Amino acid sequence: MNSYCAATYRCYDEKADFDKKALGIAVGLTVGSWTDLPEAKKAEMERHLGKVLSVTVHEPSGPEKTASDRYADITIAYPDANFSRDIPALLVTVFGKLSMDGRIKLIDLSFSPQFISGFPGPKFGIAGVRNLLGVHDRPLLMSIFKSVIGHDLAALREQFYLQAAGGVDLIKDDEILFENPLTPIEKRVEACLQAAEQAKRETGQELLYAVNLTGPTFGLLDHARKAIAHGANALLFNVLAYGFDVLSELSRHPDIKVPIMAHPALAGAFYPSAYHGIAANVLLGKLMRLAGADLVLFPSPYGSVVMPREENMAIKEVLLTEAAESYVYSGSSSANNVQTGAPAGTSAVASDSVGTPAGTSGRSAAAAPVLPLKTSFPVPSAGIHPGLVPLILKDFGDQTVVNAGGGIHGHPMGTIAGGQAFRQAIDASKSGIPLQDYAANGHSELQAAIQAWGSKG
Amino acid sequence: MNSYCAATYRCYDEKADFDKKALGIAVGLTVGSWTDLPEAKKAEMERHLGKVLSVTVHEPSGPEKTASDRYADITIAYPDANFSRDIPALLVTVFGKLSMDGRIKLIDLSFSPQFISGFPGPKFGIAGVRNLLGVHDRPLLMSIFKSVIGHDLAALREQFYLQAAGGVDLIKDDEILFENPLTPIEKRVEACLQAAEQAKRETGQELLYAVNLTGPTFGLLDHARKAIAHGANALLFNVLAYGFDVLSELSRHPDIKVPIMAHPALAGAFYPSAYHGIAANVLLGKLMRLAGADLVLFPSPYGSVVMPREENMAIKEVLLTEAAESYVYSGSSSANNVQTGAPAGTSAVASDSVGTPAGTSGRSAAAAPVLPLKTSFPVPSAGIHPGLVPLILKDFGDQTVVNAGGGIHGHPMGTIAGGQAFRQAIDASKSGIPLQDYAANGHSELQAAIQAWGSKG
Repeated sequence: MNSYCAATYRCYDEKADFDKKALGIAVGLTVGSWTDLPEAKKAEMERHLGKVLSVTVHEPSGPEKTASDRYADITIAYPDANFSRDIPALLVTVFGKLSMDGRIKLIDLSFSPQFISGFPGPKFGIAGVRNLLGVHDRPLLMSIFKSVIGHDLAALREQFYLQAAGGVDLIKDDEILFENPLTPIEKRVEACLQAAEQAKRETGQELLYAVNLTGPTFGLLDHARKAIAHGANALLFNVLAYGFDVLSELSRHPDIKVPIMAHPALAGAFYPSAYHGIAANVLLGKLMRLAGADLVLFPSPYGSVVMPREENMAIKEVLLTEAAESYVYSGSSSANNVQTGAPAGTSAVASDSVGTPAGTSGRSAAAAPVLPLKTSFPVPSAGIHPGLVPLILKDFGDQTVVNAGGGIHGHPMGTIAGGQAFRQAIDASKSGIPLQDYAANGHSELQAAIQAWGSKG
Repeated sequence: MNSYCAATYRCYDEKADFDKKALGIAVGLTVGSWTDLPEAKKAEMERHLGKVLSVTVHEPSGPEKTASDRYADITIAYPDANFSRDIPALLVTVFGKLSMDGRIKLIDLSFSPQFISGFPGPKFGIAGVRNLLGVHDRPLLMSIFKSVIGHDLAALREQFYLQAAGGVDLIKDDEILFENPLTPIEKRVEACLQAAEQAKRETGQELLYAVNLTGPTFGLLDHARKAIAHGANALLFNVLAYGFDVLSELSRHPDIKVPIMAHPALAGAFYPSAYHGIAANVLLGKLMRLAGADLVLFPSPYGSVVMPREENMAIKEVLLTEAAESYVYSGSSSANNVQTGAPAGTSAVASDSVGTPAGTSGRSAAAAPVLPLKTSFPVPSAGIHPGLVPLILKDFGDQTVVNAGGGIHGHPMGTIAGGQAFRQAIDASKSGIPLQDYAANGHSELQAAIQAWGSKG
């Protein structure tokens, strides 16, 4: 049986024949040409031929719509036989040349079981990270260093201690902290984990420190080994600056015995445009989980650097759904008219279902989980203060990491109180108590935070 | 003396105070905060502080302009002291978080001499590629396989021979040809180079075959070694699917003794939007040359997959200019008002020149070449037929590669004639003879091509 991965594109065009365009993609990005092949060759090439699975045209309507709003969502199935089981091969196949072909955005990807079998996925996942921390009954709390560049080890250690003492579960490096003479990775790890030990004597809490893994690509593995040898218990990684495959290589390597936290640096070069790029749920959702990120940061819908809420929710679904998307396209359907040479538009739209949740798949698609991988922690970031915690938990549930920088360091009573205020806000939310009531009931740190930044629940 | 790299952004905002925004970037992406630092600490942190070099606001004007067209070009200098000498560190610093901050596009980058000293650049460059081929007096001609997926070695060998026999200088793999049982890289190299030898006995020409280097990142070096051991004399690489640093690692490695051709697959996810992403001259120009690409493909302005001509010309300039951009910002200027705490907008705009050609730099900037690297061949691609050659040479001059696929394979007289028609078009253009005249003078292959596709000169 043939096996296929599928890509969905949103294509804008004022007057294109989208069925014809879809067929052009399905043929052009796979076998190259079809109608001029001899019949005997067609039988042989059939297993390499892309298939048009669906074309849904949205004609502009309503008073404010113009011809330039006309678009179609096109889903194409690409035979696994055409590419190796790595993310660069998949992306180059489905969106290499096509990314440059007019107004077109990659809005979804579905992986076949065969393709995904090449990916171990997150090594720890949500359950593994929780086990390391011994925290199973609440969202986690993460803190970001306030400023790191130009500071020495003593300053970092002090900052680390103040964050840890407030009760945070994870602390991450700033993503712009690279190898430097003041705070090289192995010394930074040692100094910060000493501070973690000091705080643990007071809080009793475990803590993960995601140290920024940087430098030349071919040296990353050795660099990570060095950090881990010096005690690093988590890594931060700027995935998009290195490519998804580097994350995939690191996460699957046996020497990387710690969780990897994916930073979204550069993601804004891909996802915000309606007309170009790669949608956030693919970029920061599916591909991050596939590549093995245990935690994934992305811009929250709450703060200054924002992403629309629905995009946040799409990322969440992709990271958290355990038996996620169903996709099996067997290639046995005759719905694709490239086989008959019939004019595009007559029968090119297949009824096969792609990317639907397991159990609700369409007629020709069997229901099979295709992200049989550990789940990844969604970490909505930027602009988070304690008053937002009820809203975050309403949107994300317990399986999330509340992540704050200024909302901790900028607390009127200091950094330790900043962490405490967040923990109080989490406790209140978990107990279903309005923040104001909980704050008024002897939780002065939360009280001060609400006075400073307000409250949403 | 402090040393800085600089980034220029185009920021769209209907009502922002762009001077304030620039200052926020300069401080926020370097030391984090400034005004609340103690004076003693400021002296120590000064060398890590970003500087606003220029803010040029474009207010909307004219009948069709709306407030949403309001933008500013902002140039920020980032101290080299803040990041390691690799492309991921630079990109994460200048456009990591910032890429997600509203409508903002990275439109230029300037490298300090100190930063660029970490990069050997292209190992061969234009002169080196020409030496390998022994061709110094004309643009090169490249051919692309017509279809490769699903074809066996014999079919590839035959296709290769037909291209080579027509007189092309380079043949590249399709970028979507990955490791597969039919044509694994080492056998593909051997079969195709046998075909090259056969053609050489007829044409007397040398030929480079850029074989597609694919697969897991940490295995690329070994994979390339294997290909080279089997005779590969050039590599094709999907740079953006792997990250610029992987190209940089490969190109500088002593075992990679062959030119590297950079494919622009996925580039359309970055450059086409006016509001987001990374401009083509940075993405496919400066960063490709910095990372060591000997040849760089990009969508031509002539064909179906198009890029505006001015963007093509910007890429060309960046790839070809030998003593390219001048940029030295010493940090000694007091023009940046973060030092005084004066309100933004009063003196924040420095007069320092960034990214201007050598010799025309501004008052505070010394003229120094900062791309002291070999030049890279620009390869405008897609939609090229022989009739376009005079136009290509007018736009790009001799230091370019004329690159065709359908324009060779689709020739009415066959693939060999397709290559010959291009060589005739190049000869005619070099001699200043109109194509029609040259074709009519006994060059039937060119004649047939012009009849099929027309002519622009």
